[in-house]
Amino acid sequence: MRAVILAAGEGSRLRAYSKRPKPLIPLLGLSLIERNMLALKECGINDIVIITGCYDNEIREYLGSGQQLGVKINYLHNPQWKLGNGTSAYTFQQEYRENEKYILMMADHIFEVELLRRFLKEAEKVKQNELLLASDSQLEKVYDLDECTKIKTDGNHAKILGKNLKDFNAVDCGLFLDTGVLQRTLSKTIEQGAYTLTDAVNLLAEEGKVKLHFVSHYWVDVDDKASHKYCETVLLRSLVPPKDGFISRTINRKFSLRITKLLASTKITPNQMTVFSFLIAALSAASFAMLSPLVGGLLAQLSSILDGVDGEIARLKFLKSRYGELFDSLLDRYADYLIVMGMSYAWFGATEHTTTALLVSAAALAGLPLSMLFKEKYRNLTGKPYLPEIHDGRLRYLPANRDGRLFIIMLGGILNQIPAALALLAAVTHLQTLFRLKAVRNFL
Amino acid sequence: MRAVILAAGEGSRLRAYSKRPKPLIPLLGLSLIERNMLALKECGINDIVIITGCYDNEIREYLGSGQQLGVKINYLHNPQWKLGNGTSAYTFQQEYRENEKYILMMADHIFEVELLRRFLKEAEKVKQNELLLASDSQLEKVYDLDECTKIKTDGNHAKILGKNLKDFNAVDCGLFLDTGVLQRTLSKTIEQGAYTLTDAVNLLAEEGKVKLHFVSHYWVDVDDKASHKYCETVLLRSLVPPKDGFISRTINRKFSLRITKLLASTKITPNQMTVFSFLIAALSAASFAMLSPLVGGLLAQLSSILDGVDGEIARLKFLKSRYGELFDSLLDRYADYLIVMGMSYAWFGATEHTTTALLVSAAALAGLPLSMLFKEKYRNLTGKPYLPEIHDGRLRYLPANRDGRLFIIMLGGILNQIPAALALLAAVTHLQTLFRLKAVRNFL
Repeated sequence: MRAVILAAGEGSRLRAYSKRPKPLIPLLGLSLIERNMLALKECGINDIVIITGCYDNEIREYLGSGQQLGVKINYLHNPQWKLGNGTSAYTFQQEYRENEKYILMMADHIFEVELLRRFLKEAEKVKQNELLLASDSQLEKVYDLDECTKIKTDGNHAKILGKNLKDFNAVDCGLFLDTGVLQRTLSKTIEQGAYTLTDAVNLLAEEGKVKLHFVSHYWVDVDDKASHKYCETVLLRSLVPPKDGFISRTINRKFSLRITKLLASTKITPNQMTVFSFLIAALSAASFAMLSPLVGGLLAQLSSILDGVDGEIARLKFLKSRYGELFDSLLDRYADYLIVMGMSYAWFGATEHTTTALLVSAAALAGLPLSMLFKEKYRNLTGKPYLPEIHDGRLRYLPANRDGRLFIIMLGGILNQIPAALALLAAVTHLQTLFRLKAVRNFL
Repeated sequence: MRAVILAAGEGSRLRAYSKRPKPLIPLLGLSLIERNMLALKECGINDIVIITGCYDNEIREYLGSGQQLGVKINYLHNPQWKLGNGTSAYTFQQEYRENEKYILMMADHIFEVELLRRFLKEAEKVKQNELLLASDSQLEKVYDLDECTKIKTDGNHAKILGKNLKDFNAVDCGLFLDTGVLQRTLSKTIEQGAYTLTDAVNLLAEEGKVKLHFVSHYWVDVDDKASHKYCETVLLRSLVPPKDGFISRTINRKFSLRITKLLASTKITPNQMTVFSFLIAALSAASFAMLSPLVGGLLAQLSSILDGVDGEIARLKFLKSRYGELFDSLLDRYADYLIVMGMSYAWFGATEHTTTALLVSAAALAGLPLSMLFKEKYRNLTGKPYLPEIHDGRLRYLPANRDGRLFIIMLGGILNQIPAALALLAAVTHLQTLFRLKAVRNFL
């Protein structure tokens, strides 16, 4: 399927804050239109048509053939862009292939990838002669309702649309699936001197041909400075994965998301962050071994926070890779091992090499990879991820996932209680394994 | 889909060796017909019709409703079974539903489950008015060719069949997918006084309606004492999983398969074997700790051998479970940990608690779960298992998988070289991880 992105407008309200044309305004390391193209690509759409208007040259120069992003871009210029966005959408007419279904979206509307994915799934079921429109009925959550195009709905269909509608129960997200019917209608409305997209959609709505897909994920129309900032906030919030443990969710992400925001506009890659987080862990281990438990503990927690950043950057900038994930998992295990070995070494020296130190250290070391082993095996057996927040029940407060373990280590370092921290690590990790084995017995 | 199993004959040649009717003769812990039903169940077929003849009562009494096996059995009795197996197959006519596709098989032909699975996949594509017949064209591998029904083929179709055919290039495996055409033909041939299945199949072959599915997995017609023994051998051989490492393949399986053969007829469950293997490992750990490295080493290797038995029994007797696999994986990790901790404890005592002993032991301990971590993560990322024999290249000779690690431990025990064994364990496990990370970089 092809996607058509409208990038013809002037974007006057953001113009005051940025020299770039609106579709090229950066947001967390990617321009708005790049983010949309990469999101489409993640959903399997690589063939993109951009309709330019006001900033034809700038946009072509900036994006080129799309090769760098891994997509194919064709440009169409709409010299009449000033008349209204209906003329821009209608510019696609010259490229439209009979019976083709295509996605129509705005360069400056940013969607969570999952929203796009579900819309595309719904799009498979749309009938010829219908237009599918993404709409949001959770009005209390919609940002800047005043600026939205409102919809009065009739079940799953739109009855009437308009910016100044008084009686409405949903808003238009600016994401369409056209089966050709919109192009035909645009040709009529434009001839009659009605130049906006809403004019054509309204005509179709009157005929009962605008089917609505109600979204449940976030989307933002980036229109001004405030919505730009809001979009950053929701994008960052969406980066927290469901697999997160309790400490990570309540503490680490508060910091890691800020770091990610700072690093987003740099060229730092997720794998570089993985290595950096590992190096901090190695420094933590060395600090423990050299009898600076306070520094060791703080560095361990820093490493734990940084451990979230690689994944956040990867998701934020569409840089996820299977190798990256494997590399991160294994380096995390080594980081854990090194820190615990540093702690053991310190304890060992302090107690003149007792057998207790050896055995407790060994038990703590052995416990470190168990959570990952369990989760990976579980996923392979069931095809579903093991999510501590859901599957562990009350056990999720046991600090035995990585976030919890490194938190124990930090406390052990700050309070200079290495033996107790190691004993606690051993206890929580082995207990967690035991409980999990018991818990899944009945439903595996 | 339903399956019809012919179990009507007298089985005179095996009668001399067993008091039971042939379909009920045990083979590695399951009767022949039970094995076939459980194999069908594993392929998704739970609705089974058994045609009895000579031993109607015995078979009904032994198998009952099938509930215990997790299948539904309907019995049909063929009083004319002595006339020929065509009359038994035709007994199904009274139950046959219009346009139904069903599997027809013999109670005493044993198939590898994968053969059945592929046959069923091919069966989806068979046309109405055709009969699909499993046949084997690898004649040099066929057991007791003399006894087989031969086929002269014409591409993917049978031309003529017969036990005494001179010119042939495949044999009949006794596994059919009938679309109804066989039942109609049997009614004709039986009326004409031709009572065997081959008579009807031959008539269809003449009309070009017998499509052949060529098998590549093993199957055995269990007809006499020799073929019974042969079937045991190939069944046991099929239990070695593709994930096996070098030491396991060349040494451990030689012993474990014999143990499995001995235990097959007992009620011992795979999970019980998992626990038993773990207890032997715990004994090995205790022996090392109590300064009996020779015993410790031998018990470690015994535990390694026993570690194969749980999976073999599970596959052999259709007792696989996801929980069993998870339980085994985690208990194996604990077994490894305990043994290495026992060795460390011994070394630690012998060297008056040196730091070297602490660090080398920690490195060895940390290396133990890495192979599993890598393989599970790889499988989750790619959807495919990581098979050391295939993916590791020359690295597969590095004894860093569990079979190799326990072999190193055995050698360390026998030669009383615990420090060297621990150092070697640490070296091979971490090297393997490093090499694997490097190797998958390009194709992940």
